[in-house]
Amino acid sequence: MRVLGIDPGLRRTGFGVIDADGPRLRYVASGTIVVPPALTLSERLKVILDNLRQVARDTQPDVAALEIIFLNTNPASTLLLGQARGAALCALADSSLAVHEYTALQIKKAVVGTGRAAKEQVQMMVQHLLALDGAPSPDSADALACAICHAHAGPMQEKLERLGTTLRMSGKTRIRNGRLVG
Amino acid sequence: MRVLGIDPGLRRTGFGVIDADGPRLRYVASGTIVVPPALTLSERLKVILDNLRQVARDTQPDVAALEIIFLNTNPASTLLLGQARGAALCALADSSLAVHEYTALQIKKAVVGTGRAAKEQVQMMVQHLLALDGAPSPDSADALACAICHAHAGPMQEKLERLGTTLRMSGKTRIRNGRLVG
Repeated sequence: MRVLGIDPGLRRTGFGVIDADGPRLRYVASGTIVVPPALTLSERLKVILDNLRQVARDTQPDVAALEIIFLNTNPASTLLLGQARGAALCALADSSLAVHEYTALQIKKAVVGTGRAAKEQVQMMVQHLLALDGAPSPDSADALACAICHAHAGPMQEKLERLGTTLRMSGKTRIRNGRLVG
Repeated sequence: MRVLGIDPGLRRTGFGVIDADGPRLRYVASGTIVVPPALTLSERLKVILDNLRQVARDTQPDVAALEIIFLNTNPASTLLLGQARGAALCALADSSLAVHEYTALQIKKAVVGTGRAAKEQVQMMVQHLLALDGAPSPDSADALACAICHAHAGPMQEKLERLGTTLRMSGKTRIRNGRLVG
């Protein structure tokens, strides 16, 4: 299973791709999309959209993983981050990738073993788990950590989701538009 | 000049297309993209993305106009709206459309003549200005109002933006990445 992890942001969007074969992980690619700040909002979102679609074309992942967003106390920042996240999700949807979402707590627990880990610890553990020569950049590390979290939690979560879908399918309200099938 | 106005939302996204020939306005098309709530977030954003790209392909607008978003007091709502707006902006960017943004106040002033207009007044004035047989739905009316606002304010705003670009072009910091040209 090849997982594309993403850490979306309007200034920088990190991405990281790993292969997971049971508990074994292999680094494939990672990087940071740096968005020129002088562009208009729609041009900036287009940079995220185009580059993530390119990453998906180049690396051919099976599934994508994103961090559930931190709600900034500044509503304007939340709005900007939401728009960047919307662009990232559009790129994934355009690439026909199912998206799984994890909280920062789940990701830190999966990678470091505790939810209270500092950013540097996440970078170090990502480097260790993927046997990298050096520490990845903070944005790449967060994206790779999210991919690792899905590699660990994904199989269990998918089982639960299939079960959930089956349960919902047996109800009446949720199958009216027929979209949950498949 | 053909203007595509958009009123983005995760549940419903309104769109409206008008032709503006100086002060003369002509209705072209409008509608509401209703997003099935049972879908996942990324599937919902994909519905907005695909449908707006289709509207742009079908109606071939020259430019797009959006309302500057109302910052909800609920951060989670702001985030959801931000993601829907991000998807709408991605669809416009994918369709190579420049985007102009207006505040609710500017739009109401352009359409009703006062910034304190009620939703029903906006609907009524949109119907009147575009000589429609009936009142458009609220989402379509907001999108059409935004397009009308650009038709009125656009020519002046574009002149100012060209002037602004010229001024920025003469500075040093803003032309470093060369993206403002053209």
